[in-house]
Amino acid sequence: MKAAIIQEINQPVSIQDVEKPQAGAGEVIVQLKAAALNHRDVFVQQGKYPGMKLPVIIGSDGSGVVAEIGEGVSDEWLGKEVIINPSHNWGPDNRFYSKAFKILGMPDNGTFAEYLKVEAKYLHPKPGHLSFEAAAAVPLAGLTAWRALMSRAGMKPGERVLVTGIGGGVALFVLQFAVAAGAEVWVTSGSDEKIEKAMALGAKGGVNYKDPNWTKNLIAATGGDRSGYFEVIIDSAGGPHFAKLIDVATAGARICFFGGTTGNITDIVPGKVFFKQLNIYGSTMGTEAEFAEMVRFIEENGLQPVLDETFALEETEKALRRMDNGTQFGKIVLKIG
Amino acid sequence: MKAAIIQEINQPVSIQDVEKPQAGAGEVIVQLKAAALNHRDVFVQQGKYPGMKLPVIIGSDGSGVVAEIGEGVSDEWLGKEVIINPSHNWGPDNRFYSKAFKILGMPDNGTFAEYLKVEAKYLHPKPGHLSFEAAAAVPLAGLTAWRALMSRAGMKPGERVLVTGIGGGVALFVLQFAVAAGAEVWVTSGSDEKIEKAMALGAKGGVNYKDPNWTKNLIAATGGDRSGYFEVIIDSAGGPHFAKLIDVATAGARICFFGGTTGNITDIVPGKVFFKQLNIYGSTMGTEAEFAEMVRFIEENGLQPVLDETFALEETEKALRRMDNGTQFGKIVLKIG
Amino acid sequence: MKAAIIQEINQPVSIQDVEKPQAGAGEVIVQLKAAALNHRDVFVQQGKYPGMKLPVIIGSDGSGVVAEIGEGVSDEWLGKEVIINPSHNWGPDNRFYSKAFKILGMPDNGTFAEYLKVEAKYLHPKPGHLSFEAAAAVPLAGLTAWRALMSRAGMKPGERVLVTGIGGGVALFVLQFAVAAGAEVWVTSGSDEKIEKAMALGAKGGVNYKDPNWTKNLIAATGGDRSGYFEVIIDSAGGPHFAKLIDVATAGARICFFGGTTGNITDIVPGKVFFKQLNIYGSTMGTEAEFAEMVRFIEENGLQPVLDETFALEETEKALRRMDNGTQFGKIVLKIG
Amino acid sequence: MKAAIIQEINQPVSIQDVEKPQAGAGEVIVQLKAAALNHRDVFVQQGKYPGMKLPVIIGSDGSGVVAEIGEGVSDEWLGKEVIINPSHNWGPDNRFYSKAFKILGMPDNGTFAEYLKVEAKYLHPKPGHLSFEAAAAVPLAGLTAWRALMSRAGMKPGERVLVTGIGGGVALFVLQFAVAAGAEVWVTSGSDEKIEKAMALGAKGGVNYKDPNWTKNLIAATGGDRSGYFEVIIDSAGGPHFAKLIDVATAGARICFFGGTTGNITDIVPGKVFFKQLNIYGSTMGTEAEFAEMVRFIEENGLQPVLDETFALEETEKALRRMDNGTQFGKIVLKIG
Ligand SMILES: [Zn+2]
Ligand SMILES: [Zn+2]
Ligand SMILES: [Zn+2]
Ligand SMILES: [Zn+2]
Repeated sequence: MKAAIIQEINQPVSIQDVEKPQAGAGEVIVQLKAAALNHRDVFVQQGKYPGMKLPVIIGSDGSGVVAEIGEGVSDEWLGKEVIINPSHNWGPDNRFYSKAFKILGMPDNGTFAEYLKVEAKYLHPKPGHLSFEAAAAVPLAGLTAWRALMSRAGMKPGERVLVTGIGGGVALFVLQFAVAAGAEVWVTSGSDEKIEKAMALGAKGGVNYKDPNWTKNLIAATGGDRSGYFEVIIDSAGGPHFAKLIDVATAGARICFFGGTTGNITDIVPGKVFFKQLNIYGSTMGTEAEFAEMVRFIEENGLQPVLDETFALEETEKALRRMDNGTQFGKIVLKIG
Repeated sequence: MKAAIIQEINQPVSIQDVEKPQAGAGEVIVQLKAAALNHRDVFVQQGKYPGMKLPVIIGSDGSGVVAEIGEGVSDEWLGKEVIINPSHNWGPDNRFYSKAFKILGMPDNGTFAEYLKVEAKYLHPKPGHLSFEAAAAVPLAGLTAWRALMSRAGMKPGERVLVTGIGGGVALFVLQFAVAAGAEVWVTSGSDEKIEKAMALGAKGGVNYKDPNWTKNLIAATGGDRSGYFEVIIDSAGGPHFAKLIDVATAGARICFFGGTTGNITDIVPGKVFFKQLNIYGSTMGTEAEFAEMVRFIEENGLQPVLDETFALEETEKALRRMDNGTQFGKIVLKIG
Repeated sequence: MKAAIIQEINQPVSIQDVEKPQAGAGEVIVQLKAAALNHRDVFVQQGKYPGMKLPVIIGSDGSGVVAEIGEGVSDEWLGKEVIINPSHNWGPDNRFYSKAFKILGMPDNGTFAEYLKVEAKYLHPKPGHLSFEAAAAVPLAGLTAWRALMSRAGMKPGERVLVTGIGGGVALFVLQFAVAAGAEVWVTSGSDEKIEKAMALGAKGGVNYKDPNWTKNLIAATGGDRSGYFEVIIDSAGGPHFAKLIDVATAGARICFFGGTTGNITDIVPGKVFFKQLNIYGSTMGTEAEFAEMVRFIEENGLQPVLDETFALEETEKALRRMDNGTQFGKIVLKIG
Repeated sequence: MKAAIIQEINQPVSIQDVEKPQAGAGEVIVQLKAAALNHRDVFVQQGKYPGMKLPVIIGSDGSGVVAEIGEGVSDEWLGKEVIINPSHNWGPDNRFYSKAFKILGMPDNGTFAEYLKVEAKYLHPKPGHLSFEAAAAVPLAGLTAWRALMSRAGMKPGERVLVTGIGGGVALFVLQFAVAAGAEVWVTSGSDEKIEKAMALGAKGGVNYKDPNWTKNLIAATGGDRSGYFEVIIDSAGGPHFAKLIDVATAGARICFFGGTTGNITDIVPGKVFFKQLNIYGSTMGTEAEFAEMVRFIEENGLQPVLDETFALEETEKALRRMDNGTQFGKIVLKIG
């Protein structure tokens, strides 16, 4: 079968012909129809994870059709259209993952291939209203967004939500989930165009963080005051800007982040946090139960993931470069076969 | 001014001309434009509350314009279109109300009158998208629904929600709130017509509880199984049917009730509750913060309360009789002036 | 090896010589030093569970020494003194157990034997301050008590706790846990002697529920008032008495039950539940994480389980009959080997 | 009456003879028997709060006897021995304080005087087992400790707790509360002697943070590993050391802080927070309900606040200087009259 393989770090991905995997006990083989990219794929290529195991077929997100089942797997799965939960071995405690936790697509071979071997317990029926491409866009980013917004920040319908850095996959799911759950959502971006697109998706407004006065602009736009406005803030940038999120948070707010693309968090004034009784949460991908909840919410509300550009599996390297330059709005998808 | 007054229990309400109230310190006078009925008004007429104080102007729900302000009240309120939170003196603990708790419309004079005296802290700006009639329908029922669904049952977007006895004011708000918050909502009713109307409001389906097999019908319709289906159930009937709600609840479900119109709860099989790890909550009206959240949610999502029939203030007795016979679908409203 | 076996329902347990089990992959063989009884053992003997599989070696609680390890088990376990978590396959959601959930001692062979085969993941080091007999008394009852009191009722240190039916294994652990966690604890019992023993364990007082005025007596003793006294109530009786627990609960109280030995719950007055905003929870045994927390709490606080009487393995039937007649105070233990 | 007054910032407190206050409606006059110091008193003297109002009688903590009651106050208070909750106007939401929030002892006159005027609702009966001096030590520090540990961090009995900077009033209450609630508690300090004293109060151990390897030492002492050890960490220092707390926190830990005496928080590595799913909370003094819970816990468990040194009211300046130099272990108390 064809697969996109990382042979060495910091080298282009290569499309190779490799052996099709076989299903062991409790496993299935999925014939992939589409896959989607995450920053993680670029980070794997850059060798950013401890204990890298190469070569590896990358890719955490995928959709397809169950082509083969191993021993002990219900034959109802055969031929089913599915998506795959890439969050493996979370473990028994909802609050944090176990030491055995791993993400599909390194160390285990991932979804940028014609076939995928995976434990049957990570299969979920593809939502009927989604194409294979749209469904492939859901897993990693949707799960990360769901846990951050719903489980960790505990967003209540009607609350005021700020999503920073709109345009990336997770941030867009946060936006869509919060809007569909009846929240008032605002965004930040370095691009006015992305803010406009976010408003078309239901955001009430947004500000450009390249303006040094962006927090003042945001407070003015929302009608907030010196004590802030937002009850929920979802961030993945960290860095020096993080301290400003504290200024726009209202008393009792929950700030949740699952990334730190702009570096270390600095210059937090303790009094700003404790006088406002703020809550700051770190989050990652989530549990099996959260994945099921998230998929159900997408189905129930007929949500369509935002797709950026679609590439062929053979163009994986090109797709990775697009991911890396950060100009995308929505998920970058690979069409397979 | 004209007012609808209960002179003695079990007697028709009488429309009388009484002295217009005056605003003391911290109080305002609201010129009422509309009011709305609740079962409580009928219960007051029937003398069902301990420590009844008569005569009294009944009515908990109202909207209008601030006509006068007392000492210490910001003059920004003057002339403002408002609705009134009828939940007074909740007290410092979100979890339960204080001993000083009281509901507008007995012992204090209520909203079925041309003018109302009320503490300014219970005023909220009328949502801009609502008429006075629609706004008057919101307070008591909306607050009760919000606390039961959001604070007590802690509904998470995407969950499966069952609302029993659809048609009453609170149940309809529960339905609308849950739908707008991205839940999958089902209803029960004794009237197929009401179920159809509920589906027009976003319910996915419903069953008629007059059918002795209604729980089986409901499980079949939803695709649930022997271990139930619903994660959240909101009830106000209590009585012998309550035990059946346990059968349609899924493991870990939350069942919240705020009324017991059909009498005592009986024949709960302990094992059904503990093997499924169920959670059963009692609830009432709510806190000042919950009222503000609820109004904001209505505004943010552009919700329109379901209105049944509108009467003139002079027809209050007729309106009470309609409330009492239970055939309404939505709030019964009084137009004033 | 010798083992206590149920051959048919409603027949005395028989002590037989059976084959010693062998450890498969991920499993260990524990040489048991002590076991303890639970009502469950009597219920299995009475055939009260659906899908009974006989013959079976009963027994959920045990302590001993790891005598053999299967493939893939760390050899650090060999020779270790251990207790065994009998709550198997809870599953991924802390809130309820999965469909694969099972309890050690039916369908799988249990602890009333010289050797036990069990998955290594259910082993926990025996607390150093406990004898094998005391350690064997901990697992099922301690876990049930911990989940009910700490996870479900969410007891906060300093709260007022009522434990009904003191004397049984779970109730005594609830008492000990609550006292060690800084709560004010009261008990009920049908025996004044048991109440006195509970006070020696740290209860502040108690009442005899055979007195028809027991709720009034309890309120008088505590200094509570008409609106109740207890913030947390832990019950396992259910039945007609359950409604009285509602009378002694204070506003916002949590009532948790994990049994229903006196039958169905009846005559709950809805208004008493909702005006007081009560919370009623069903509970069972718990998760792997709860088991670890519970054992750690016992170690940290040097708690000694209350032991009733110790029998030899050969006297299992006699021990079961003592369990069944309900006069015990504390855990009934079997000494093995 | 005699009172300790701040006339101008950065000047010694002066003991003056001023008019005894009179009780208005809802108020009482307490004849103070003892008071206690907090860093806040020093900060007021240094003019560190916005909107300072001088001159003022400082002091947030006090105990005494009710000498006079105003209109509408129950005469049962007359002659009662009391302590005073210094957290005023918290407001309706448990999660954060209202804009009207203020702390006794600036802007309102405080407890370093022979008489205090205060609203009756802030009175609590003095726990019977405490002297006036010990009781005066409780309010501000005890409330801050209770909210941080119990409400915000949600410490569960049996958890592993780290208290930084042991010796100050709040940290010592955190230690005592956690120990009495069955936790395993460790401390840090810059003084080995303070660590020993903390161990005499029930701490399991501690490390000196002056040692640059203190986190490694702590992990070694506890038996933790690279992924940390503590489920709850309570801090009031902030500053560059805060980032190290993240290293000793275990997955899912809650870190709560209510001060920032060593400056801004810097160099937080986002991945350390989100991979471990940490929770970081700011906290302050608390609600009326929390104050009542805290006092009840102290009574129920017979806790004795740790007292450092006792001064006469006339020696207030000397007492403030002792507070300021940071060598105390426990509360510094003023004896009055
Ligand atoms: Zn991204
Ligand atoms: Zn109704
Ligand atoms: Zn028992
Ligand atoms: Zn201090």
